[in-house]
Parts: sequence; C-alpha cells; structure tokens
Amino acid sequence: MHILIIGAAGMIGRKLTHRILADRRVSDREITRLTLADVVDPAVPPGAATAIETRAADLSLPGVAESLVAARPDLIFHLAGIVSGEAEANFAKGYRVNLDGTHLLFEAIRAEAARAPYRPRLVFTSSIAVFGAPFPARIGDEFFTTPLTSYGTQKAIGELLLADYSRRGFFDGLGIRLPTICIRPGKPNAAASGFFSNILREPLIGREAVLPVSESVRHWFASPRAAIGFLIHAATLDLGRVGPRRNLNLPGLSATVGEEIEALRRVAGDKAASLIRREADPVIERIVSGWATDFDARRALALGFRAETSFDEIIRAHIEDELGENI
Amino acid sequence: MHILIIGAAGMIGRKLTHRILADRRVSDREITRLTLADVVDPAVPPGAATAIETRAADLSLPGVAESLVAARPDLIFHLAGIVSGEAEANFAKGYRVNLDGTHLLFEAIRAEAARAPYRPRLVFTSSIAVFGAPFPARIGDEFFTTPLTSYGTQKAIGELLLADYSRRGFFDGLGIRLPTICIRPGKPNAAASGFFSNILREPLIGREAVLPVSESVRHWFASPRAAIGFLIHAATLDLGRVGPRRNLNLPGLSATVGEEIEALRRVAGDKAASLIRREADPVIERIVSGWATDFDARRALALGFRAETSFDEIIRAHIEDELGENI
Ligand SMILES: NC(=O)c1ccc[n+]([C@@H]2O[C@H](COP(=O)([O-])OP(=O)(O)OC[C@H]3O[C@@H](n4cnc5c(N)ncnc54)[C@H](O)[C@@H]3O)[C@@H](O)[C@H]2O)c1
Ligand SMILES: NC(=O)c1ccc[n+]([C@@H]2O[C@H](COP(=O)([O-])OP(=O)(O)OC[C@H]3O[C@@H](n4cnc5c(N)ncnc54)[C@H](O)[C@@H]3O)[C@@H](O)[C@H]2O)c1
Repeated sequence: MHILIIGAAGMIGRKLTHRILADRRVSDREITRLTLADVVDPAVPPGAATAIETRAADLSLPGVAESLVAARPDLIFHLAGIVSGEAEANFAKGYRVNLDGTHLLFEAIRAEAARAPYRPRLVFTSSIAVFGAPFPARIGDEFFTTPLTSYGTQKAIGELLLADYSRRGFFDGLGIRLPTICIRPGKPNAAASGFFSNILREPLIGREAVLPVSESVRHWFASPRAAIGFLIHAATLDLGRVGPRRNLNLPGLSATVGEEIEALRRVAGDKAASLIRREADPVIERIVSGWATDFDARRALALGFRAETSFDEIIRAHIEDELGENI
Repeated sequence: MHILIIGAAGMIGRKLTHRILADRRVSDREITRLTLADVVDPAVPPGAATAIETRAADLSLPGVAESLVAARPDLIFHLAGIVSGEAEANFAKGYRVNLDGTHLLFEAIRAEAARAPYRPRLVFTSSIAVFGAPFPARIGDEFFTTPLTSYGTQKAIGELLLADYSRRGFFDGLGIRLPTICIRPGKPNAAASGFFSNILREPLIGREAVLPVSESVRHWFASPRAAIGFLIHAATLDLGRVGPRRNLNLPGLSATVGEEIEALRRVAGDKAASLIRREADPVIERIVSGWATDFDARRALALGFRAETSFDEIIRAHIEDELGENI
C-alpha cells in the first residue's frame, strides 16, 4: 500500500509518520511506499525500512495536487493547513490554503479517477472550530456548524466537499473533528490555545508557564497519541458502517484548567504545579469563551474511536512519548 | 438606493423585479437605480419609472462580479444558480456556478470594500436541500446540514462563506433557505420536484397533469408571493436581531400531495382535480423520499418572516397573480 501524508512536516504529520514506519502496516496491509508532502521540507526519519519520498510544495498552487495524486496513493492523509490564528490574521491566505488547497486536492483525485478507475481512502483532519457559541451543555452528533472563525468556516467547507465527493464516488473520505490536541510537544507557541499545553509541558521540565485564563475554563481535549489513533482508525474503518454522513465528532476529554492542574499535581507533584504563574489576559479569556466545552460523541464511540478519559492519562502519555519516561 | 439583482431573468428574479418596480421603495428608501444581471439577458419590464440597466454575463467568469460590484449597489440579491437536477447531472458546472460564482461575488465585494468603505446588504437564496435524510419529524433551527446532493452542498458552502464574510464586516449577509416554491408558474419542467406545481397549475387551466408519487408524500412549500415577501423582509430586517448565525430556515407549509389535491378540489372543483393522472415513477418517488417534510422555523417566525398556512391560500395567490383571478 502507498500512503501519502500531506502536511507531513507538522506536529501530527511527524507523529503519524513515525507510527506508520514503526507499524510497517495499516490494518492487514503492508506499507510499500510512503510519500511525505508539506510546504516545509518534511524530514525523513532515519533508518526507515520503507521506500520514502518527500515533496516540498504548496498544495494551493496549481499542479501540486495533481502531481501528488498522479502516483495513485491508496491512502491519503490530508493534514495540511493554516491554523486558526493565522487564518484569522491573514484572510486571503487562510482561504487559499485551507479552502482552495483542499478543493484542488479533491479535484485532482476526481481528475485522476476520470482517467482510470481510482478511489483512494482520504482522511481529513477537521476541527471542533466548525462549531460556534452558544452551545448546548454537550454538543451532540446532529448539532449545526456555525463557525465563528475563518479557520472553522474553511474546515466546515472542507467537510461538505469531502462528503459530496465521497457520495459521488471520487474517493472514500472521512472527516474527523479533532479535539484540541494536548499536550502539544515542542516550544510554547503564540496560538490562543497554547496555554492549555504550556501549563503542563513546561512545568514537567522544570520551567515556568503562564496561565492567562481562570481555572474554571472548560475545554475539549485529546492527546497527540489519541490523535494518531484516530487517524489510523479512520484509515481502516469500514465505511459501510458510516454511511453518507462522513464528518464525525470524536471522543475526547472535557476538563477545566483547574482539573488539568490537579492532574499535574497528582502526576508530578506540588513543585511542578507551583511553576504555573497566573497572569490574566482578557483577550485570550474572551476568545476561549467562544470555544466548545463538551461533546456527546456517541457516533464515533460506536464506530470504535477512543480517547483518554482523564488528564492523568494525557500527562502520562506525554511523559512516555516525549520525555523518555523521565520527569 | 441602488439595487442589484443577480439571477434576475429567473422565475424569482422576474417576480422580485416587478415587486420592486411597483413599490418604488424598499422599506423607507427610494429606489433610484436597478441593475438586472443574469447569464440570460434579463428583460426590462415596460414602462418602469426607475433607471434600469441590464447585464447579460456569467457570474462565474473572471471579472464579471467585479464589474457588477464596481457600481457599489447598496442592496444585492444573489439569486443566480444552477438548480438541483443540473448540478447533479453536471458536477463541474454546478461547482463552477454555485460555488465559484458565489465566492467570486463575495470576493469582489471584499475587494471593493478594501478600496473605500463599502458594506452592502446581501440576500442569498439558499435551499432546504442543505439538509439530508434521515430527519427528525420536524427540522429545528439547530439541525445539522448534511446535504445529499451537490446542489445542497454548494448552497451550504455559500451559507458558510456568507456568514464568515459578514462576520468580517465585508458585507451584511443573510441567507434564506427557501421552501420549495409552489405553484411555480410557466410550463411544466423536468425538475424532480416539478409535479408538486404541475398537478395544480395545469388543472387550473383545464389541462391534464401527471402525478408520479403517492398522495401520502409530504413536503415543505411556500408560494412565489411568499418568496418575494421573504426577500424583501431579508433586505430590510435589522441584522442586530439576527446575530452571527446568518442562515435561516424559513416558515412554510408542510403538506401532503393528498392535501394539495383536496385544496385544489375546494378551490377549483372536482373537474379540476379529475385532470390529475396517476402514473407512478419509482425514480422520482425515491428522490423525493430523501427530501425534508417539515420544519419548526421558530427563529424566522420570531424575526417576522411569514408564509401561507394552507394550500387553499397558495392556490388563490396563484389565481390572483398568474391567472388574472380567472379560473
Ligand atoms: N493540533 C490540534 O490541536 C488540531 C486540532 C484540530 C484540528 N487540527 C488539524 O490537524 C491538522 C494537523 O495539525 P497540526 O497540529 O499537526 O498542525 P501543524 O501546523 O503542526 O501542521 C500543519 C502542516 O501543514 C503544512 N502546510 C501549511 N500550508 C501548507 C500548504 N499550502 N501546502 C502544504 N502544506 C502546508 C504546514 O507546513 C504544517 O507542517 C491541521 O489540518 C489542523 O488544522 C489540529
Ligand atoms: N424555486 C425554488 O423552489 C427554490 C427553492 C430553494 C432555493 N431556490 C433558489 O432561489 C434562486 C432563484 O430560483 P428560481 O426558481 O428563480 O430559479 P431559476 O432557475 O428560475 O433562476 C436562476 C437564474 O440564475 C441564472 N444563472 C444561472 N447561472 C448563472 C450564471 N453563471 N451567471 C448569472 N446567472 C446565472 C439563470 O439564468 C436563471 O435565470 C436560486 O438560487 C435557487 O437555487 C429556489
């Protein structure tokens, strides 16, 4: 099986690459070829046994999607995208990458399928940003998508295209609305959601972190490990069980910032928790207040998607996967 | 006030033009200029007192939207579109006109607003085809959009763009999901939904009509007169009352084909009703079974949108508006 990962240089793309190379198969199919594409040159993990190609190219430019699809990958992970803050700051760029890029990819697959029978599996990472406040206490599987950001709008449009192109038989698509991925590894970043990860990741390595909102703020989370599990499950799921409604709310953990901190205290002690510095930021507080807090992801659970059920688990997964089990 | 109607040569566009020219104002604002645009040359109604221009141009071609918006109309009705059957038969054309055409229009307004302050009101005719079966008994205001046609997909994408461009302040948009417009005037057409109108319109002028489905089929209707009322109301509504959720289910009448026929009998007698010939068509029966049957359009009702409450009213409106009160 030939797998194409678009957005392979990103946080999730790199973790997915590692997992695929470690497994050497997806479900019962052996991986014979892996193509890593991203606008940033994707690094090839050293010592991989599988045939790997990399492609540094901008998906939103004419011809790029066609050239990626020309090799007829059996499975495509479409992870490429401009994230929320940048799509809001740069309106035209967000639409170009997140909408046009996605549409160009889908059109390239349709054109390829018109040349000779071809119907890859396509997994698209959507986001809970497709929802906009006010929300019910728990968002159900049939709640409407009224995004309050350009990023959320672009993801919701990608979902609609995915469902229609799948219905028409051009590919077998599945859109998965990832919860906020926490603990995001790497350096603290400027994303409005960054603090949810910063206040755990930094204290775990003995550094201070700033908490800009109150401890009562509630949000919806899954670990990077769970995210990779979602992607692999989406790649292998029997779509006959899904039907025409191809975009899913995923399971996750609804937790407050206070609960995050309590879990940190349990796993890493009072000293770690004391490294969190409260510094209220009304701008971030306001942005975050428009975000979803809880879901009843019944359909995805019935389809076999699984996430963590406590922040202790999320923190332990981070310690195992990122810190070599040392804190 | 300068009004631009795009799709002005269509059924609703022509009726809207007549209404606007008859009223000579929208709410308290006098109409000083009217631009009628369509890919088909729009006819100028004779004897109109207002300055009228017509433009025959394809909205989906580069430059057309810009040239329409360059005159800075205060109010834009975007009615242009490829209808359901054609968008399904011709995938590329549907996306080009319904998606690209709409996006090009919105982008042209954004570009115009970037040159100098400009923020027109924009009314977009969406459709209940944004919903896909299975449905609850009555579709509520927060039910999700999972279209089962390319047309419905394109309308749902137009809605998302409209909400985001409005949120960003490029224009003041309102998307209205029209019920199936019945009685559609003119000749019987090949649309799958055509029979809902044919079985009333043709018998009212002494002609036979074919009913391809069973009398128990239920659907969601409003008259052309109600549709024009919706458009005018949407053009004048205080958007402060609407908030960021800019796409509305409209009120309408939920009725079965049997109820249509009973109303015809009451208004026009047994002889008219006897002109309906039953000729089952399993293809149409199957298509129609995926369509919405009933709505709880609470929000639009609270915002002052009004539709008929019986098929007798719908038939009488047709007799008054189309048949010079004669049957
Ligand atoms: N991390 C989260 O919390 C989260 C939550 C919901 C959804 N998602 C989605 O999951 C996907 C991956 O997320 P991530 O956290 O790894 O993000 P990331 O920003 O780390 O990775 C995205 C990748 O897309 C690439 N990219 C951007 N523009 C491109 C273009 N024009 N052509 C090709 N590649 C381009 C970037 O270079 C980057 O490597 C994204 O689509 C994101 O929107 C992430
Ligand atoms: N009639 C209904 O039951 C109904 C129901 C829901 C929504 N709508 C929507 O309401 C709007 C008007 O409906 P209608 O019944 O008058 O349809 P119609 O087909 O009579 O009118 C649509 C008009 O759009 C024009 N058009 C098509 N492509 C174009 C292009 N590329 N550039 C410029 N103009 C173009 C057509 O020439 C036509 O005159 C449409 O957007 C339709 O989707 C109608």
